[in-house]
Order: sequence, then C-alpha cells, then structure tokens
Amino acid sequence: MKEVLIIGAGLCGSLLALRLAQHGFEVTLVEKRPDLRKVTLDAGRSINMALSDRGVQALQLVGLEEAAREKLCIPMTGRMIHETSGKTFLSPYSGREDEYINSISRPGLNKLLLDAVDTMNNVRVIFNHECIEVDFEKAAATFRNPETKETLQLRAAVIFGTDGSGSAVRSGMIHDSSFRFNISRQWLEYGYKELELPADAGSGYRIYKNALHIWPRGKHMLIALPNKDGSFTVTLFLAYKNKKDSFETLTTKEKISDFFKREFPDIYELIPDLSDQFLKNPIGAMGTVKCSPWHHSGKTLLLGDSVHAMVPFYGQGMNAGFEDIYVLDQYIKDEVSNLQQGKTSWETIFEAYEKERKKDADAICDLSLDNFYEMMAHTGIELFQKKRQLETAFESKFPQQYFSKYSMVTFDDSISYSEAMKLGRAQDKAILRLLHSGRLPESMDLEEKLRLVKSQTKAILKEEEKPDYLQFN
Amino acid sequence: MKEVLIIGAGLCGSLLALRLAQHGFEVTLVEKRPDLRKVTLDAGRSINMALSDRGVQALQLVGLEEAAREKLCIPMTGRMIHETSGKTFLSPYSGREDEYINSISRPGLNKLLLDAVDTMNNVRVIFNHECIEVDFEKAAATFRNPETKETLQLRAAVIFGTDGSGSAVRSGMIHDSSFRFNISRQWLEYGYKELELPADAGSGYRIYKNALHIWPRGKHMLIALPNKDGSFTVTLFLAYKNKKDSFETLTTKEKISDFFKREFPDIYELIPDLSDQFLKNPIGAMGTVKCSPWHHSGKTLLLGDSVHAMVPFYGQGMNAGFEDIYVLDQYIKDEVSNLQQGKTSWETIFEAYEKERKKDADAICDLSLDNFYEMMAHTGIELFQKKRQLETAFESKFPQQYFSKYSMVTFDDSISYSEAMKLGRAQDKAILRLLHSGRLPESMDLEEKLRLVKSQTKAILKEEEKPDYLQFN
Repeated sequence: MKEVLIIGAGLCGSLLALRLAQHGFEVTLVEKRPDLRKVTLDAGRSINMALSDRGVQALQLVGLEEAAREKLCIPMTGRMIHETSGKTFLSPYSGREDEYINSISRPGLNKLLLDAVDTMNNVRVIFNHECIEVDFEKAAATFRNPETKETLQLRAAVIFGTDGSGSAVRSGMIHDSSFRFNISRQWLEYGYKELELPADAGSGYRIYKNALHIWPRGKHMLIALPNKDGSFTVTLFLAYKNKKDSFETLTTKEKISDFFKREFPDIYELIPDLSDQFLKNPIGAMGTVKCSPWHHSGKTLLLGDSVHAMVPFYGQGMNAGFEDIYVLDQYIKDEVSNLQQGKTSWETIFEAYEKERKKDADAICDLSLDNFYEMMAHTGIELFQKKRQLETAFESKFPQQYFSKYSMVTFDDSISYSEAMKLGRAQDKAILRLLHSGRLPESMDLEEKLRLVKSQTKAILKEEEKPDYLQFN
Repeated sequence: MKEVLIIGAGLCGSLLALRLAQHGFEVTLVEKRPDLRKVTLDAGRSINMALSDRGVQALQLVGLEEAAREKLCIPMTGRMIHETSGKTFLSPYSGREDEYINSISRPGLNKLLLDAVDTMNNVRVIFNHECIEVDFEKAAATFRNPETKETLQLRAAVIFGTDGSGSAVRSGMIHDSSFRFNISRQWLEYGYKELELPADAGSGYRIYKNALHIWPRGKHMLIALPNKDGSFTVTLFLAYKNKKDSFETLTTKEKISDFFKREFPDIYELIPDLSDQFLKNPIGAMGTVKCSPWHHSGKTLLLGDSVHAMVPFYGQGMNAGFEDIYVLDQYIKDEVSNLQQGKTSWETIFEAYEKERKKDADAICDLSLDNFYEMMAHTGIELFQKKRQLETAFESKFPQQYFSKYSMVTFDDSISYSEAMKLGRAQDKAILRLLHSGRLPESMDLEEKLRLVKSQTKAILKEEEKPDYLQFN
C-alpha cells in the first residue's frame, strides 16, 4: 500500500507531504483550517519565526533551501540588547561569521511548502476538514467540515499526525484507555502578546535590521524580529498575575502606556498606537508537551509540535519539527519500495526513529525552558554577559575548538539536541563557576582560559556520571 | 454556606466527609459505585494495603485509630526476602522495635469509615451516581445513575474531588482550555496481577504472618501481604512485554507453571490453582499522576490519588491521601465558623494548603518510583543488603540519632515527604559510596561509622545546593 494520510498541513505536515510524495507515496494531506493562500487568518499566532541550521537542512532535503533563503529570510547575527536607559549593544550568536539565524515569515514559509506540494501529482490536499476521530487499529480517520457539518472517512497504510500542540490525533491516544500513553503538559505562568512596529515612511527598518532585539527586564521581556516589509513583530512576555506588572494589572490604556514608558521607553516612542494594539490583540499561552510512545500500533505516528510542543525561547520549535522529518527520512529513504510492498513494516521504522529521536525532543523542550530564564534575566546580569563575551572570544579565536551551547543547538546539526544539552550545560556551569571564583582573570591568556574551561567541563561531566556500582537498572 | 460536596466515597472521600461533618459542615458525599457494604465488587483492585504512621495520624484525628488497629490491622515488622533457592531472611523496616507497618483490608477500612459517616446526621451519602460534569465557577456538579440514566445536579459552597487516579473532576479541569492545568501522567512498563495464597486447613498462615514477603528477581517480583483470615494476597509485578518473561509471553497454563516453578518455586508449591488464577484475574496498570493547580477558582479542590496517583511500591498511596486530609485540617480547624460565615475564603485555605503540600505529594510519587527499583532489584544485591544491615544496626543502637529514608517516610510524620526524600537520598548515596570504596570496614566501630555517614551525607547535601550566584530566579 502506497497510501499515506497526513493530518495537519502546517509547516511540518506540508514538508512531510512533499518529502513522502518525492519518495513516490500516494499522499492525502488534510487540514482543519482553510487554505492560508486564499484566506488570511492566524490572529495572535506568531507571524515570524527563527529558521536555523536544523530547519535549513530539512528544506535542503526537499530542494527548497534556496527559495526560502532568497524570498523569505532575514539574517539575524546576534541579540541586540536594549537597556532601560536606551543604550543598546549587540551580543553575537557566535564568534564564527557564517553562523547566524534567520527571521522568516510563518505563513510565507507555509505557502512556499504548499505551493511545492501542489506541483506533485501524487498529493491530494483537503482543507476545511477537522479530524474528529482516529481508529488506530485500522489506520482510519474521520473528519468533519465545520461549515457543512459533512463528515469524511479516510483510510491509509499509515497515518502521520502533524496537527500541532493541540493535536487531535494525540487526544485520541490520550483517550484510548488501553494504550497507556504517557503525557505531560506544563504551562508557563507567562503569556505573550504580539505588537507591530511599523516600517518608517520609506519602508525602512526603524531599529537595526539584522538582529533579534531583546529588552530583558528580569520579570518580563520584549523581543522583536524583522519582517521583509520593514516592520518588526514585537512580542511582550509577561506574567499572567502575581507580579507587580502582569496581564491582570495592565487593563487600561494609561496603565499600559505607563508600563511601556517605564520599562521600554525606546520602543514606546516608536509605536504610536501601542495601547490600542495591546488591548485589541489576544494573549497567547505557552507550554511544554512531552509524550510517549509516539506511535500507536505501528500505524499512526505523531511528529512535530504534537509530541514536543515547547516554549518559544530557543527559536527551535519549527527547526525541531523539520529535523524530525529529516531524521525520519534517514530511516525511510532506503526502504521506500520495501515499505510500499509490505516487506518492511512501518512499525519497525517508527520504533527505530522514536528510539533515536525521543531524547532529543525532550532535550530541546528543556533547553527552551532554560532559555526563558536566560533571555528574561541572564542577558541583563553581568556574570552572564561576561560568560557570553568569553564564549564569543573563544569562538572567534578558536573557531574549530569551542562551541557554546547556543552554537551547538542552533548551528550544528551534526550534534543531537541531547548531546548539545549535556555538553552545553556542563560548559555553562564550568564558565560560571570559574568566573565567579575569579579563576579567569583579565590577565590570563585566552588559550589558557580555554584550556581551563575545557578541563573544568570535563570534571563536571565526570561528577555527573552515575557511579558504576549504581548502574544496573 | 455550610454545604460541602465530596465526589468519591473511597478511603479519602469517606475520611474527609467524616472530618468535615465533625466540624459541623453539611456534607453530601457522592459515589459512582454501589455501597460496598452491600455489594462485593473490586475485582482486580488491591484488596489489602499498608497502613503506616501518616495514615494512622489521620485516623486518630477522626477517632478511628483504635477501631482500625483492633479490627483490621496485621503488623508487618519487616521484609521477608525469599531467594530462588527457597532461603528466606527478614530485613526489618527499622532498628526501633515500635516501628512497623500494617497490612489492612481496603474494603474493610472503607466500610469502617462509611459506618462512622453514617453515625453523623449532617452527612448525606449517595451511591450509584457518576460525576459527568463540574461547573467550576458555580461549584456545581452533575451526576448520572448508570442504571436509570437519571441525572442529578448538586451545588455547594465548595466541592472536593476525591475520586481517585482516574478522577472525573480532574478530567473537567484538563478539558477547561482557559484553565492552564498542568498535568503529567506516566505509566510503568510493568503491570500487576493478584493471586490468592489460601490459609491452611486450620485457618493458619502458610508463610510467616508478620512480614511483607518479597521475591525480588531483578526483572520481576512477587510480594505477599497477610489477611485476617489466614490467607495472603500475592501480587506479581511483571513487564508487559519486551522481556523474556512478560504478560505477553505468559499465555498458557504450562508457561505460567514453568515460570513460577523456575522463579518462585516455594510459592508455586503453596498455590495449587495458580495457573487458573493467573489466567482468570485481570492485569492492573500502574502509573504516576502529578498536576497543578489543585484547586479551580477557589471552589473545587482535588485531594488524594486524583492529584498524586503513585506506583504502589512505597505503600504510601493511602497514607499520603490521609495525610492530605490531616494537613488540610490544620488550615480548616480554626477557621470553621469563619468559613461558614464567608469571613474566610476557601481559596485562601486552598492556596496555603497547596503551597505546603504540593512538593510533598510530588516527593512521595518520586520516592515510590525509587522503591520500585529498590524492591525489584536492590533487595537482591549484596551492596544494598549491606546498606540495609548497617542502617538497621544504626537504628537499633542509636535510635534517636539515625533514621533511614524508609523510616522517615514511613514512621515519622513530623518530617515531610519532601524533606525525607532530600535527606534520605543523600544518606543512601553516602552509605553506598562509603561501602563501595571500602571506607566502612568491618573492624570500624559502629559509632565511628555513623559519624562518617553523617559527615558524608552533609557533604553530599552541600554538593547538591545551587551555588549562590545562580540563585536569582
């Protein structure tokens, strides 16, 4: 059987449909919402995102890297930190020049993928059909058109659930009481609100174009990413309640203006209708979802946000979903005809894929939470700034010898998220410990500093190993 | 308003109903199942449990400690370990003589509680009504009689959800998308099956009465707890699949017999219809549930298994639920008239209670998983046996100076679960480290050993502290 059913035509679903079609499968791709190329929707959903190497690698796989770069990407080479005084400084993402991330339009990229899907004659795309039930034993799903209320039943050799953090396919697994599905869903006590910083009269950028801007204030934070039209999408991250400033307290135009004037005076000057936007736009929630197993009965596999929804602070949500597809493809690509002839089972593929990938999905979820604190608070604390400066110096002077946690996660697709987390956290701990105890004085030679950081990192990794006599489980 | 609605009349719900009635509230207690004093049900649910000090403390609060001890309890002073050879040895739970746990009948205790509830004229008990919806804003709930299909609506000042690990009240919170309810549900890859070891012809016990029997075999385990009638409830813990022996492989009488003959020859001799029981009885699943917040809108609070379902290996599930009620009572007992007159809000009480209790609920869930490995494997490993022997020696020679993790969790209700976990884990680590590196030779004086263990424990606790310069979140 060559028939494949993909539920959810967002970024992951479209990319997967394209890749499986390229392998010769007969793909049906079903999406709850209308075709986003015909209708504008998505109020309150993030309209730009950060594309980095892991995502690029998957676009390369389907032949869309160049198109994405040319039409959609704006390089961001570092974080532009805005202090309350208005003073700014650039903290580069890497000491290596070719390492940067890209601001990319979410709907723009989704359109690019759907257009590519449309060029394949072995993909059928059905919009406006919401998944209401999955029969995991039969690999069949029922959909409903929310307008006409008509239902549609589809069956395939295998189903892929790429329907995002609120996945209906995952819900089906949760409610199957014989399945023993492990699930964790944790919300952040912070919400977000998007605001628009328009282009200037000549369609120019009002603040530096090629950076991800951050206004770190400890208890809340503003960030801004550039759009192709000269505007920026500005996002406020703020506690729901129980803080002096929160979504619960910022209820009037006056309170909103006062808050921005006090905390983000520079941005306040640049957005004239800020309070109106604030009152009009919805508050978004942020959470982490982890689960297992990712497949049910070897016939339905979840991918992307549906199995690893994460908070947005590492800019890896989309990249992780794309890398899912890249990793899965490594298991599929040489087995295509065997799969189609039933000589290899999908279950074998799914088991191997999950075994490799699950720990990395969990790791990027955890790293994203780490980065919430890093961006919100650490970027404004001297010790952490010194750490970043030292890491940038290492990376530019010894580009083949030092890779910060951020670099490994963001720019190095040859190291997995879980390895990057383990090594990166130890490295961070080592540098902070050394800096704090004064063991990296200004006078010390940079190479000597690197040697010290490396040996301290090794010692920390050693400390964290479980002793031999406890390793029997 | 004095009206209180309690959903679920199991152990926790009945105890809570009794306590709140004693405080003068008007209580309605609703239970999904029929009255267990009239109908025998509960196939496959554990029919005896371990009652220890935290549970006893709560029974004392409502005046039922003595009745429970006299009518229902069988003291168990330690673990009786059964080796494959048939050799047995007793590993005491404590070096202090008055520290032991009790085997107690679950339905017996539930009946005792319900009988006590019936003596209160301010409690109404409604059986055979399943909760199908909760309106958290209004503190109202809808129930349905599964036989007559009739529905019933009840409203109160406040609702308590004590409806166990599959809580319907909790489901309502999960499905309220505006609530941001954090939930984690993790299943063990092991199931359990209960078997009965009958009394001998003269109603005597066929194996030693006053112990919890364990047959630790690394990859699976059998345990047995005594019943008042001379029988034992024997429970097999076994992997579902992916092991040489699993519920997936043990499918015929012959395979079952062979397995028991090989792994548990002594018990095989004692249960003539073992294979029949095995094929007839259901497989139980075991999981951990953690969640937060525990209350919704200050009007509905979850207690017991509904917020902290745990695997059964510490024997603390019921005790933790009972302690919930004891701890909650500390916040309620002096505020009863204020609560009834609306001068104190239930929300204030719930917030304070959860703040104190949540970390302890999480801790006992984690400790229960620790003990899964401890019972299954460690009890059969020399290093861990030496550790237990040393701890027992400490506790009997220095009863006021040393308390094992097990003792703190099980016998000391003055220390919270979370403190017991922190200190107990460090202590375990210290002893294992010292034993393994040969720093506790036979020749060393016991007092000297204790001093060394204490200082090593202190050092480990110090190691695990987050350094000052990282404490700002």
